[in-house]
Amino acid sequence: MTDETEDYSRHNARMARVQAARAKIQARHTLERGLLIVHTGNGKGKSSSAFGMAIRSLGWGMKVGIVQYVKGSWETGEKTFFQANPDLLTFEVMGEGFTWDTQDRARDIAAARAAWERSKALILDPDYDFVILDELNIVLRMDTLPIAEIVEFLKERPLTKHICITGRSAKPELLEIADLVTEFQEVKHPFKAGFKAQKGVEY
Amino acid sequence: MTDETEDYSRHNARMARVQAARAKIQARHTLERGLLIVHTGNGKGKSSSAFGMAIRSLGWGMKVGIVQYVKGSWETGEKTFFQANPDLLTFEVMGEGFTWDTQDRARDIAAARAAWERSKALILDPDYDFVILDELNIVLRMDTLPIAEIVEFLKERPLTKHICITGRSAKPELLEIADLVTEFQEVKHPFKAGFKAQKGVEY
Repeated sequence: MTDETEDYSRHNARMARVQAARAKIQARHTLERGLLIVHTGNGKGKSSSAFGMAIRSLGWGMKVGIVQYVKGSWETGEKTFFQANPDLLTFEVMGEGFTWDTQDRARDIAAARAAWERSKALILDPDYDFVILDELNIVLRMDTLPIAEIVEFLKERPLTKHICITGRSAKPELLEIADLVTEFQEVKHPFKAGFKAQKGVEY
Repeated sequence: MTDETEDYSRHNARMARVQAARAKIQARHTLERGLLIVHTGNGKGKSSSAFGMAIRSLGWGMKVGIVQYVKGSWETGEKTFFQANPDLLTFEVMGEGFTWDTQDRARDIAAARAAWERSKALILDPDYDFVILDELNIVLRMDTLPIAEIVEFLKERPLTKHICITGRSAKPELLEIADLVTEFQEVKHPFKAGFKAQKGVEY
């Protein structure tokens, strides 16, 4: 037996022990219900990760609804893809552009309110298994919608579906009631090296 | 004029100034080329965020190739979705299961080598605009493939396409040559509250 194959057989035996330990841990985790998921932080990937979960859910035959709260003024790849495949899922762009583009607080509030009413309808509709509220955190951070009202509704939500809320600077009140929170941290960003936002990556 | 409308008009004027400042910043960012993107960290969302970028790219008519290095033994929503839509993109599951499931280092190495050869072919194929190497970081962390060889190839890669590499514990040598790095940090995870991995969310 060469040293290398001996090394492998030790590795293989160790992996058998790791597998047994993991199986024991998995067996203790049996709860199942709809999760409230929050993607926040200053890093890239919060929305695209939500769209990736939409793809996972579609693969399982789940019904997905997405409401976009902010990016209304952009042409985006996800919008083109999802709206070209309306049989796949409900994708509604209801927000205005960024608040510095609209420059109209009354219009921002009206658009956010309409988007929230639509979001509630999707969450309460038993047909939907996964509802994504994209960039809702931005609207909450600007106090364009009252956090107390949103939290109160989400606490009483049906537990038969997942909900994912994205956007930087999530309010602590929302993190408090969430089941799964990921913070996306920027380590290196090409914008700072002079790059434009790139198709397929950022929009 | 009520206090509230005055408040809005101040807000609106401030947003006009923000917009002008942002336009100036945007104008300084004109570089464009394929980016090397790394998703790492212990938080959830690294792979799903890559799949979300795949959707964005598909929306722009870009051609996407995905090689999965690890999750071969799972049934996943993304696999079902992408393989049911082969006209959309190339999706290849080439990795073995987790190393503690295979318990066979020689087999792990052979599978990783085959996946890397396929990855290189997709990266060098001018037809592809976006190539995702899902969980390659795991393979590199286990030294199942040599980091030096991978870094050398990536440094000489064609700059006409984006590449996204996912997986926790990315090697520093890879972060060094990457253009965009996001660290996904776990803040709250339902597994720790006794929940199983959930369909549509984690697989």
